[in-house]
This record gives sequence, structure tokens and C-alpha cells, in this order.
Amino acid sequence: MDENVVSINLNRLMQTIEASAQIGALPKGGIRRLALTNEDQHMRDLFVKWLKEAGLTVRIDDFGNMYGRKEGLNPDASALLIGSHLDTQPEGGRYDGILGVLSALEVLRTLNEQKIKLERPVEIVCFTNEEGARFEPPIMGAGGLAGVFDESFVFSRTDKDGKTFEEELKRIGYQGQKENRAENIFSYIELHIEQGPVLEHENIDIGIVTGIQGMNWLEAKVIGQSDHAGPTPMSMRKDALLAASKMITTINQVVLEQDNEATATVGRLSLTPHSINCVPGEVIFSIDVRHSDDRIRKHLLNEIQQRISTIAVIENVQIEIKEIWETPSSHFSTQLIDCISEEADRLGYSTKKMISGAGHDAKYMNKLADTAMIFVPSVDGKSHCQEEFTKEDHIKRGANLLLHVVQKIAQLNKIEV
Amino acid sequence: MDENVVSINLNRLMQTIEASAQIGALPKGGIRRLALTNEDQHMRDLFVKWLKEAGLTVRIDDFGNMYGRKEGLNPDASALLIGSHLDTQPEGGRYDGILGVLSALEVLRTLNEQKIKLERPVEIVCFTNEEGARFEPPIMGAGGLAGVFDESFVFSRTDKDGKTFEEELKRIGYQGQKENRAENIFSYIELHIEQGPVLEHENIDIGIVTGIQGMNWLEAKVIGQSDHAGPTPMSMRKDALLAASKMITTINQVVLEQDNEATATVGRLSLTPHSINCVPGEVIFSIDVRHSDDRIRKHLLNEIQQRISTIAVIENVQIEIKEIWETPSSHFSTQLIDCISEEADRLGYSTKKMISGAGHDAKYMNKLADTAMIFVPSVDGKSHCQEEFTKEDHIKRGANLLLHVVQKIAQLNKIEV
Repeated sequence: MDENVVSINLNRLMQTIEASAQIGALPKGGIRRLALTNEDQHMRDLFVKWLKEAGLTVRIDDFGNMYGRKEGLNPDASALLIGSHLDTQPEGGRYDGILGVLSALEVLRTLNEQKIKLERPVEIVCFTNEEGARFEPPIMGAGGLAGVFDESFVFSRTDKDGKTFEEELKRIGYQGQKENRAENIFSYIELHIEQGPVLEHENIDIGIVTGIQGMNWLEAKVIGQSDHAGPTPMSMRKDALLAASKMITTINQVVLEQDNEATATVGRLSLTPHSINCVPGEVIFSIDVRHSDDRIRKHLLNEIQQRISTIAVIENVQIEIKEIWETPSSHFSTQLIDCISEEADRLGYSTKKMISGAGHDAKYMNKLADTAMIFVPSVDGKSHCQEEFTKEDHIKRGANLLLHVVQKIAQLNKIEV
Repeated sequence: MDENVVSINLNRLMQTIEASAQIGALPKGGIRRLALTNEDQHMRDLFVKWLKEAGLTVRIDDFGNMYGRKEGLNPDASALLIGSHLDTQPEGGRYDGILGVLSALEVLRTLNEQKIKLERPVEIVCFTNEEGARFEPPIMGAGGLAGVFDESFVFSRTDKDGKTFEEELKRIGYQGQKENRAENIFSYIELHIEQGPVLEHENIDIGIVTGIQGMNWLEAKVIGQSDHAGPTPMSMRKDALLAASKMITTINQVVLEQDNEATATVGRLSLTPHSINCVPGEVIFSIDVRHSDDRIRKHLLNEIQQRISTIAVIENVQIEIKEIWETPSSHFSTQLIDCISEEADRLGYSTKKMISGAGHDAKYMNKLADTAMIFVPSVDGKSHCQEEFTKEDHIKRGANLLLHVVQKIAQLNKIEV
């Protein structure tokens, strides 16, 4: 059969995305579906149903990662994995990694419908807790599979109410067996939305991701003194929020002074006490720092820590800074990047090679097998918010490219190094 | 009998303060006893028991204000009220207004023990929800009594869970009758801790309060754009927390530029979303502004609103500012101030006339009757925190002064104007 005429079914894919978006639906079209919640369970039940209806063999591993396998003509051949994750941020969009999982499902539905048989097995994979919004760190299911995190570490992670990953995974009925973990992996391809504004602004169909920025997460605790707001003169205060405010401004200055790529974000901040007529005595806030050059990232970290420590001295407060998480930058398979590039050219899609600012399951899968990623444009670069949107035409091109890349890779005997 | 030898029983007063501090006790000696909670109910039950044991006639009014009355030789004479409040901040100290209520109780215990009869009735009063930490605005019970707030306004106030003042007051069993409200009031005297550092720093026993600063509470909502922290370049962000941080710094500058008396406090701040790898899209924060000169306070408010609106333009975010509460400055009875001053001199206590930075029940009682306040020193000026502390010797002097002032005022026929 002529590969050029094979295409995914866009209507079916959009209906599948819509069905997913009903689970944990937020008023403005987004989703709140944190890992291992009832919403996650409901989504997993529906996803397993879809995998079975597509004739795939379903397995769940001990981290709750879910697989749907289509056998290859050579069942002993190492498998091509495609997928991403179905969990969301507290106020997330309906595309994000969901698009990668559901596009992978659409690819396998299309292959089966077209009765296309491939040499290698192809497995859809949905990883547990990519977002890290409920249980930190993120990319936990893929990290567990890749051996970045060991089992006891993953299982004992707790949410803010003190519930563990393992008890919540068991509670929703999705702790499978260790022997179900993916093995004998040929390569991993992940489709995802860009989550940034670059592709849309440059009017490009497809981002071919060459790697992922390194990143650090810090937590800063500012200790001042809680006092009544009225009778404490300004000059005698140790206002933890005022100090934190100056620190946040400075953190932004540090990355702006560096280059156009560096980012720093304060996404969480809490006060104690939290009362309208009390001077805040303690503030805890997070700092997220990213760069693709690990040496620059380390320089930024040092600079941020020095500058905010200086502010603490000036503001007469104490500061404690702890590192929550660090991950170096990573670089994907040049052979897979070339393969994706060739298939996109053949399909007539415009492409741009780019580094990912966000972490993805692909980051850790890159440790297990040759890996690459396909980005589709995000309107206004919006992501991790309800307004997140990708146009249908871009979804179609992304999923079609995945379909053709899968067909190409699943016929390869090996990837040349 | 010789008035100079009459003294309160410090041990009994300290035991009473200790018993109160067990209700809603926090680990570091403070109290969490928000209005109309189970802790408030428990405290009220104990307080009513104490009033009855002291031989006082107990009444509860429709706002939950509690009274314990000692009849006068002339039962038709207008009453002298003494008291304050027993509720606390979320993380409050064990003295605050509690000291005023329990010192008033100690004064009446002493008078009865010494079989001292006074011309006028004397009533202890404990006002509902002075703090406003659960139901806003603060000073609600005294404000209701003074007609500053009408019944339907007070009863319909809600906490953050949507529960109303009235349903919670009924739930804890302390909604009494409207006819129990204090009437025919001769004057009101409130003992309270200073909550600031001035008396201790100047080594003075007693603050004689001449009035209360006017104050405004504002709520500012900063609307930016929520984005994924990784792929959104710094230059394309609309970070609501970065903008809010610059605003908080500026609010502090505005009052520092004014004079030594002006204060501004940001005591509450919340982010949406609140996630480590999201650019905050919306930040809501409170602003508390105080000054004893109402014209200066209004100037500060205008200046703050203008300056933070300018920051919003520069930072490419929107700002909405709403006034939650405003109260003008107030000035107490010069006759009562002179009376307190004379009694303190006679007892050999050092005094300083001062304006209160904090609001108090006395603020609204001042609308109903001649009013004054007695401050005792706060160690390090700490208040509305667990470390709040007043030395026993200062407690003794404050309560003794109240005892002698009560004896003096309750014999007066009228206050000369």
C-alpha cells in the first residue's frame, strides 16, 4: 500500500481528546486531573477500555505505567514505544502530554484499521505522574522505569496531606507488576505540545526536539518576625514577605542579565501567619531555574543564592535555601531526529529543530533507548493553564507525522550509531 | 477603707490567664481561638462559669457579646463597662485582649472579696470577634452594639468556607437576646497589651491611650497570564507574582517616605495556579494602611493606588483594587484620660500618652459612651504571634490601675464635658 495516502482519522482523535477533557473538567475547558486521584483513576479506566477496543494487549507495571502492545511480525524484536502522560497540573490544559498518548492511540487504531503489519512490536505507553504537581518530583513513572528513581523512593513520596504514592496508586487500583515494566525497547518517540510560543510565532508546523534543558528546583524559606500590623513601626519590622518580594524581583533580574534562553520562575509562595493585620513572619517560596548549558545553569544558581542571601542580610531576616531537585540537560538521538526530519519533509510539513524548556517523559526514556520528540504549536505559547490550545490542523499534522515515523522505525533493523 | 492597700490577686489572675491559654493552645505557648469555633465555645463556657462563680449576673446579647454585671448601690445609675475580647488571631498570643477581659474579671473578684460596694453598676464585657481573622471586618461585636454595623450585615458575614456568622454563633450556643445588649452606659474602660515596642523601649509601666489610628484595608488582584515555567521566554511572560512583588516593595517605600508613624502591611497573598513549574497567572493580596491623621492616610492610599497601577502598566498585567474596610481615626475622652493619669500617678506608675496603631473594641464603644484605654508593655513589641509576652509585674500594675480607676469612676455622678 502507498504510505502517502495513509492518514490518521482526525475526527476520531478529536472525539477522543474531548472524552478525556470531560474527566476533571474545569469551567474554561481545562482539566484538573492530578496523579492518582479519582479523576486519574476514571481516565485510566477509560484509557484501558480504549486500548482493549483497539485490540492491544494491556499491561500495568508497579509504578502504574500503562502499556498497550501491538505485536510485530517478529514478536521477539525490540519494541518501539510511543506515548506520554494523561495527568495534568492543578489547572491544566486538555492537550499537553494527553495529546501524545491519544495521538499514539490514534496511530495504532489507524494501523490496525488499515491492516498494516510492522516488523517490530509497537507499544503505547502512558506514564504515571509526569507533572509532579501532587507528588514531587515530576516524571516519576518514566524515572522509575529508567532507574533514575528507585522503587522505595517513588513509593514513599507523599502529597501535601501526607498520603504516599504507593497507597494512592493501590487505592485507585493501578499498581501492577514489576515484570510488566517495558523491556527490550528499540526506541521511544513522544509527541507533545510545544508549551511555548516559538512555533506559532514563526508559523512552523512541527518542532523536532533535539534535547531538554537542565533544571533545578529550590525552596527558599525566609524567616522574619510576625508582629501586629498596627503598632509595629516600619523601622522595627522583620517582614518576611517584603524580603521575599525583593528576592523575587532580583531572581528575575539575574536570568534577564544572562541571556534570552535562561528562565527562573517562582510558582509557589506561602505565608505564615496569613492574616490581613499581621506582619508575615515566615515565607516559603519555590525557584525553578532552567538552561540547556549546565555550566550556565550552575552559574545562575550560584548567582541567585548569593544575591538573595545578600537581600536577607539587608532586610534583617534569615534565609534557608534547599535544593529540591536537579536534573542535567539531555540530548536526543540524532538518527531519530534525522528520521523524523525526513518523514516531515516527505509529508510537506515545515519543521524547526529546538531545545525543550520543559521536562518530559522522553528525558528519562532517553537513558533506556534512543529517544526523540515531536512538538506541535501551542497558540500564544499557553500551557499549564485552561487556555492551552493547539489547532486541529496542527494536531492532524503531528499525529500523521507520528504515524509515518512509527511505520519507518518499526521496520528498521537497528539504529546506526 | 484605705484604697491604697486594695490590690488585685496576681497569682489568681495568672492562673486564670493560664487556664485560658489551654483552650486552642499552640505548641509555643500561643493560642489559635478564632471567633465562633469550638475553641471559642469552650472558652465562653469557662468564662460564663467564672462570671457566675464571681457572683455576677450573666447576659448574652444577639451578637454573642457576653456581660457579667455587679449591681451598684444605685441600681438605676448608668453602668461602667470594662472588658475586651477572648478571640485570637490564627496564630495569636495568650494576652492581647484576653488580658483585658481577665483583668476585668480579677477587678470584680477583688471588689467582691473586699466587699467594696460602688455607686454605679459595673459590667465586665467580652465582645464577639474582635480579631476579624475568621469573619471580616474585625471589632464586629462591639461594632454591632454601637450601631456601626447593622444586624443583618453582621449575621450574614461568611468565613472562607461560606459559613455565616449567625449560623456559627447559633451552633456554638451563644446567640442571646437583643434586649440583653448593653444600655445606659456611663463609660467604657479597656485594658489591653500595647502590641508595639514603645513602652518597653522607653521603660514605662502604663500607656494611656488618647485615640486610635484610622485604617484602610484594600484587596489587590493582579491578573497576568499563567504559562508553563519552562518554554515561555522571560520576555514573553505576564508574571502576576513578579508584578505583585514589585508592588509590595513600592507600598513599603510609600509609607517610609511619609513619616515615622505611617504603616502599610501586606499580610495575605495567594497565587493561582500555585505550582512550582507554572508562571503565576493571578495574585491576590491585602494591603493594610494606618495613620492617626485621616488626611495623611487618604494621601497614602491614593499614592499607593497610583504607584501600583503604574507598576501594572510597566509589567503588562492588569490590576483591580477594592476597598474592603475603612475606619477613621478616633479620640478618647479627655476626662477619662485625666482620671487614669491621676490614679496612675497616685499608685506611682510611670505613664506615657500614646495613640494606638491597632483597632480595639474601645474604638466603637467610644461612639456609645466616654471611653479610654490602658496599655501595658509588650516584650519586644511582639503581638499576634505565639511569642507575645507581658511581664507579670506589668500585668499587676495594669490590673491594679484598672481596679482603682473603676472605683473612682463608679463613684462619679457624671463626667464633666
